[in-house]
Amino acid sequence: MQMSQGVEWALHTCLNLSWLPPDQAVPTGKLAAFYELPAAYLNKQLQALVRAGILSSQPGPRGGFRLARAPEDITLLDVVLAIEGPDEAFVCNQILRHGPGGRPEVDYRQTCLLARGMRRADIAWRRELAAQTLAEIREDVERHFPETPRNTRARFAGQ
Amino acid sequence: MQMSQGVEWALHTCLNLSWLPPDQAVPTGKLAAFYELPAAYLNKQLQALVRAGILSSQPGPRGGFRLARAPEDITLLDVVLAIEGPDEAFVCNQILRHGPGGRPEVDYRQTCLLARGMRRADIAWRRELAAQTLAEIREDVERHFPETPRNTRARFAGQ
Repeated sequence: MQMSQGVEWALHTCLNLSWLPPDQAVPTGKLAAFYELPAAYLNKQLQALVRAGILSSQPGPRGGFRLARAPEDITLLDVVLAIEGPDEAFVCNQILRHGPGGRPEVDYRQTCLLARGMRRADIAWRRELAAQTLAEIREDVERHFPETPRNTRARFAGQ
Repeated sequence: MQMSQGVEWALHTCLNLSWLPPDQAVPTGKLAAFYELPAAYLNKQLQALVRAGILSSQPGPRGGFRLARAPEDITLLDVVLAIEGPDEAFVCNQILRHGPGGRPEVDYRQTCLLARGMRRADIAWRRELAAQTLAEIREDVERHFPETPRNTRARFAGQ
């Protein structure tokens, strides 16, 4: 069970955009070049972030992507779900339906106590991701690596 | 990001075996027939559970699979990791290496604060799965569905 590479790309891209002035849009090519990523594939992640309301996309010659809301209002969970979709990792195919006493009208995704146990873990995972905002991560990065904001802006400016 | 179907199969199979006498081994065919599962594919999950020390496999005409240890000593995490492997769901490919100031000798899986944030969620998920034993789930099932142990033994006996 692994997330797509796009999650790492999306997280770092959103974080980098948080160091730019809010009205500065960056085109896909520049965002891809930042980490030497394939632009076409990164663009798919960027579009998913736009659909989730995390980025906004600005057309035109000075167009590109920027954060659609403040880093305080973007959590790790928002970014992960934008890329990976809303489904839980554990898939309950209701095999209890085929077991002894199984009934076709019962929704075993709700009643099965193993499914419920797996869901408790999924909720703990989501809660932990939802508790971390992009603003907090940014602050943490700035504390540990004070040169990062300047380096980030310089690389975007220099490309 | 989804787990394989095998996780659901493995969880239910281990739970069902916990209702049998500890020395009763059940062959793959019977375990598969219980939920009308494909025997060859279920057998792969059973072998993985044996490798993880959760099941033991007994050869011979009265052979098959049984729990290798008490349900009190088997957690949901044990079963999930046996099927899905030990890797974390978030994949850090260290794209920071290619960013400004990126250094080839640094292990960004350890230093990257986004990777660290993702790992916090993974730990919360594992902790929640590790906190639930098969014995507790079994007790919970018996409380809510008291006929389940008898039904389970009857289906294994009747096949």
